[in-house]
Amino acid sequence: MDKILRIDVGAPGGPKATEEPIGDYAGMGGRGMTTSVVYKEVPPDCHPLGPENKLVIAPGLMSGSAASSSGRMSVGCKSPLTGTIKESNAGGTGSQALARLGYAAVILEGERQGEDMYKVVINDQGVSLEKANDLKMLANYDLIDKLKPVHGEKVSVISIGTAGEMRMSNSSIAVTDPEFRPTRHCGRGGVGAVMGSKGIKCIVVDASGAKTRKPVRPDEFKESNKKFVEGLKAHAVTGQGLPTYGTNVLTNILNEAGGYPTYNFREGRYKHAQNLSGELQAENMKNREGGQPTHGCHRGCIIQCSGIYTDKDGNYMSKQPEYETVWSHGGNCGIDDLDAIARLDYLDDHYGLDTIEMGVTIGVAMEAGVIEFGDAEGAINLVHEVGKGTPLGRILGAGAATTARCYGMEHAPVVKGQALPAYDPRSVKGIGVTYATTTQGADHTAGYAVTANILKVGGDVDPLQTGGQAELSRNLQIATAALDSTGFCLFVAFAILDQGETFEAMVQTINHMYGLDMTGDDVVALGQKILKMEKEFNEKAGFGPAHDRLPRYFSREPLAPHNVVFDVPDKELDSVYNF
Amino acid sequence: MDKILRIDVGAPGGPKATEEPIGDYAGMGGRGMTTSVVYKEVPPDCHPLGPENKLVIAPGLMSGSAASSSGRMSVGCKSPLTGTIKESNAGGTGSQALARLGYAAVILEGERQGEDMYKVVINDQGVSLEKANDLKMLANYDLIDKLKPVHGEKVSVISIGTAGEMRMSNSSIAVTDPEFRPTRHCGRGGVGAVMGSKGIKCIVVDASGAKTRKPVRPDEFKESNKKFVEGLKAHAVTGQGLPTYGTNVLTNILNEAGGYPTYNFREGRYKHAQNLSGELQAENMKNREGGQPTHGCHRGCIIQCSGIYTDKDGNYMSKQPEYETVWSHGGNCGIDDLDAIARLDYLDDHYGLDTIEMGVTIGVAMEAGVIEFGDAEGAINLVHEVGKGTPLGRILGAGAATTARCYGMEHAPVVKGQALPAYDPRSVKGIGVTYATTTQGADHTAGYAVTANILKVGGDVDPLQTGGQAELSRNLQIATAALDSTGFCLFVAFAILDQGETFEAMVQTINHMYGLDMTGDDVVALGQKILKMEKEFNEKAGFGPAHDRLPRYFSREPLAPHNVVFDVPDKELDSVYNF
Repeated sequence: MDKILRIDVGAPGGPKATEEPIGDYAGMGGRGMTTSVVYKEVPPDCHPLGPENKLVIAPGLMSGSAASSSGRMSVGCKSPLTGTIKESNAGGTGSQALARLGYAAVILEGERQGEDMYKVVINDQGVSLEKANDLKMLANYDLIDKLKPVHGEKVSVISIGTAGEMRMSNSSIAVTDPEFRPTRHCGRGGVGAVMGSKGIKCIVVDASGAKTRKPVRPDEFKESNKKFVEGLKAHAVTGQGLPTYGTNVLTNILNEAGGYPTYNFREGRYKHAQNLSGELQAENMKNREGGQPTHGCHRGCIIQCSGIYTDKDGNYMSKQPEYETVWSHGGNCGIDDLDAIARLDYLDDHYGLDTIEMGVTIGVAMEAGVIEFGDAEGAINLVHEVGKGTPLGRILGAGAATTARCYGMEHAPVVKGQALPAYDPRSVKGIGVTYATTTQGADHTAGYAVTANILKVGGDVDPLQTGGQAELSRNLQIATAALDSTGFCLFVAFAILDQGETFEAMVQTINHMYGLDMTGDDVVALGQKILKMEKEFNEKAGFGPAHDRLPRYFSREPLAPHNVVFDVPDKELDSVYNF
Repeated sequence: MDKILRIDVGAPGGPKATEEPIGDYAGMGGRGMTTSVVYKEVPPDCHPLGPENKLVIAPGLMSGSAASSSGRMSVGCKSPLTGTIKESNAGGTGSQALARLGYAAVILEGERQGEDMYKVVINDQGVSLEKANDLKMLANYDLIDKLKPVHGEKVSVISIGTAGEMRMSNSSIAVTDPEFRPTRHCGRGGVGAVMGSKGIKCIVVDASGAKTRKPVRPDEFKESNKKFVEGLKAHAVTGQGLPTYGTNVLTNILNEAGGYPTYNFREGRYKHAQNLSGELQAENMKNREGGQPTHGCHRGCIIQCSGIYTDKDGNYMSKQPEYETVWSHGGNCGIDDLDAIARLDYLDDHYGLDTIEMGVTIGVAMEAGVIEFGDAEGAINLVHEVGKGTPLGRILGAGAATTARCYGMEHAPVVKGQALPAYDPRSVKGIGVTYATTTQGADHTAGYAVTANILKVGGDVDPLQTGGQAELSRNLQIATAALDSTGFCLFVAFAILDQGETFEAMVQTINHMYGLDMTGDDVVALGQKILKMEKEFNEKAGFGPAHDRLPRYFSREPLAPHNVVFDVPDKELDSVYNF
């Protein structure tokens, strides 16, 4: 993983690939790599869809190695949705494949010439670029079907659907899973639109000729990785909750806590939540033919939180929808039908859309009266409108903030233009601090304070009190920025936050891979360095304290059942980046 | 003009009117008043369509007096289009009527309850508020037709069309002209959406029982006003150009200068500009039955730049479309048919839309491929889509920036979300500085550097050079903020910039009206005070130097025929508010 692939889409005669040594970017992976490149090479005042923006795809530091659960890949750019710097990551098989082929980053850059779409093929022989207008405006599952006869099912594909080609602000980049389905998505921030603006439809990565990356200290590596795996298996969340129920184990928990945003964030508890629970979802997957509740999104995953969701007749419906998807399309829209939600999840993946942004957008459209709350068929039709790019689809495909603007509404649950995820900031105030202050626009993964607020993992901070939330969010944001660089799945955080020895094992695994002697402090320093670059980029792009706020109505309108508003003081919010 | 009318739209049982003395706001009128109230009473972080925003309607200081050309009325709020503070002003008969009735401001405030629309009636007996759901979703001309039998044709009406009711970001507030037509618009910044968000459909002002306001020093007032009028008549622009041709005298001038944005700001000269000229437009109005090329938009206007435009059979088409309208719907869209443009002007007034924003939005939609450049019928249909609020209309009604976002385009000619007017900033760099730096989002009237750049009025600054533009824009922005407070039409600036004695006569007219002894320095101080309040509001709302910029592509893509980019250095832009 010592080289960088640059694809200049503005080269005369068509896109041109060049390889270079990793150089100054050595030591960076995942989010650390994407942020470093965007920070150094992209002018903060550029238009996200203009020639000066770049799309950086980077495997995590540990990807392609034998380290467990290390298959996360980061994508970075200036975001068309938020206007901030953006890092969006996904599992799937792409990260391991790119890493095994030695690529620390693939950078799409330059000014697209004309309207042709291109396919990039990367294997151990090098890189080829092909005009691929026959793939134009194919949705992701159709694209994969078309690529299968050409490339087989063992390759990894990184692709955009129709939304990305139409440069919609809510468009994702898909990564194929072990079953060669386009189910893992760098969803947030409209990164797919940047790929679309570069005229690249897909990147086919064939690592069949490449080997697992070798650690510098192989025996020690094996030992520390073993301890790491033991720790993951021992923790209740990573060892039991996630494998058994997936992320949707959270529905009952958040609903019980009164932090489950319902009807476009009008209430904090959904009366039909039991119909959306992870327990019921797992039951469906267990009982239905072809269903699979415990499944890894890439080889080498220990946590196995993903799954395969089939209908009553055993037909494939979608991957197991995540908690945030079940919420955004479910309770937030007053829809309590898991099968309808699986269909929506499939369509989001198919057209290439972030499920959180799409669900919240539909909730806004429901409040605007476009369709009624609870109308599952209507919601499915709306996603088709987006995939087809009708005028209504153009509105919705631009995300929740733009939809609210088009319909003249105040109630847009967004920060920096990005939709709030599945935790109401009024009754889970720590996550509210993260929404407000992260460099990414509203994002739960950027500093998942639900841990200490609700799950009582890594501490215990009352979710309804204002005190301690800023510190909690700060520490989590720093740790997350570092973790997002390693390629380890963020879910390892549950175990490493609670179990010191598991954290130590993780750090040692990295050390033995690279021949380093990092301590926990070095990990913190890395996280801080990344956040500082991101913050500086955003400041130059025009973001200041006034943007590190929730929409005012969260401070004005109390949320049932606790009847609380978001009341963490501004000065607390402004203290989060004091490091 | 010593009282303020507040209408609390959130009062239990329906909107409630209360009057109070002018108090601390004494001495403020027009923009000075709207900015002072918004600065003092509206939280900068509020949502423009939320309950904390206020709509302030304020006659200029001299409105309602016998001073010439003093019928401008300002409307202020936090703008739904830009997110900045906003002042938008118009002529028509409303300002004089409110002023004669003694109102220094009408403030709509509070949180609308339910979906009812209300009519406000103001006369010398006081204020009444009536539920008026029969007026719901009437476009402006239809609204006036419906009000005529009830209120007669002597009243003034301040109203919103369907766009404002739908809270579209590009919606205007209409003011009736002397023929009782809704042709004068506070167009910019989406102020109509704020009126719509307060549930007020229209304000009927009946000043028939009120008299012209008396000056403190009547004889001296008469004398200075006479000198002021003589000055206006003596200047080539205000005495000849504007009365004869209206503002559209500029088409040939700007086209010749290569500063006429064509095909969505892709070129600086339009090959069919002669078909859009003010000379041809005046010819049409002179030769056609019912046409009237020289006409005042309110009683007491000396400059008489407005007019009445009829079709070949003498049927009323619209008021005389302004230069910016002829450009936005014309050259900017590749349309060279003055009658089609008059139709578009009518529809904009009818639905309640800003013609600049609407024309630029259509240009963006043309570049997106929604319709072809040059398709006049298509453009007319698009405005109907907006008026009806179809999904496509919702996109377009949200303005040029949102339209570009929905179609995934970089080429949105906007600053702070507001469309650039009819002067390309690359070849008229002084106006580029104003677009970038004004507190209002891209706005030519905020500091009309076209004077010294192109017209050689009030100085001579080469439009293609970077030097001197910041100073020019600064001085004009200060003078304009003051002038926008007086109620005098901005067009008096041509005469007062060139003729010291006319400026002196204007200041003396104000002094004799109020019994003051202001000097020119006091006028400058007033302008500076207003701009500083606006700037501070914007800073608190999250606007900093990064927002005082043109879109990057104006610095990257040269404009024919001069093949120049916008290259005024950032530090020059940042120096504009150094006072």
